[in-house]
Amino acid sequence: MLNHEAEATDRVFHALADPNRRAVIERLTRGPASVSELAAHLGVTLAATVQHLRVLQDSELVQSEKAGRVRTCRIDPSGLRNAEAWLHHQRTTWEHRLDRLGAVLDDRPKESGS
Amino acid sequence: MLNHEAEATDRVFHALADPNRRAVIERLTRGPASVSELAAHLGVTLAATVQHLRVLQDSELVQSEKAGRVRTCRIDPSGLRNAEAWLHHQRTTWEHRLDRLGAVLDDRPKESGS
Repeated sequence: MLNHEAEATDRVFHALADPNRRAVIERLTRGPASVSELAAHLGVTLAATVQHLRVLQDSELVQSEKAGRVRTCRIDPSGLRNAEAWLHHQRTTWEHRLDRLGAVLDDRPKESGS
Repeated sequence: MLNHEAEATDRVFHALADPNRRAVIERLTRGPASVSELAAHLGVTLAATVQHLRVLQDSELVQSEKAGRVRTCRIDPSGLRNAEAWLHHQRTTWEHRLDRLGAVLDDRPKESGS
């Protein structure tokens, strides 16, 4: 894995390690929301919400745009796909190894019962 | 999500946010390894490796057992499945919302060309 890819993966998993940041993502999968709607949903201050959104945007989990005085946030699928792809790759590599191990065990000469 | 589930999810994502801990998982998906093999693979001290393994075991990503003087580590699939399930759920919720949005747009009366 290249260094900048590893750093992007670090950022995504770090962002997801916080329950409030995961709650933002869970909320945004159901549709876009303003920063104040997200603050109300989390029950935390606007400042804390903005801080969480910064981490989520840096890790490409959330994107936002400002129209007039309202900033609207929505899911950025890049970060979710990056993290899911890494996990999927690890799980399938591990399962394929178990399958090969099972095949080797199946091919062993059977011990005769006595 | 219940509190203890959220805490387990926090721990898994926190564990995965470190490149050395991800390197341990990538190594173990190809087969079990001793602590000293993992330290050599990472190029870090035994003490640092033990510290990383503690975080990985607390988050149910790795399990280990000691036979004589050798501790052998292997993948614990629970943590990987937990994290992958959370990400999969978010991505599919988001995609289904996009699909429904697409269906609504397709059903709109077409503007007549002129």
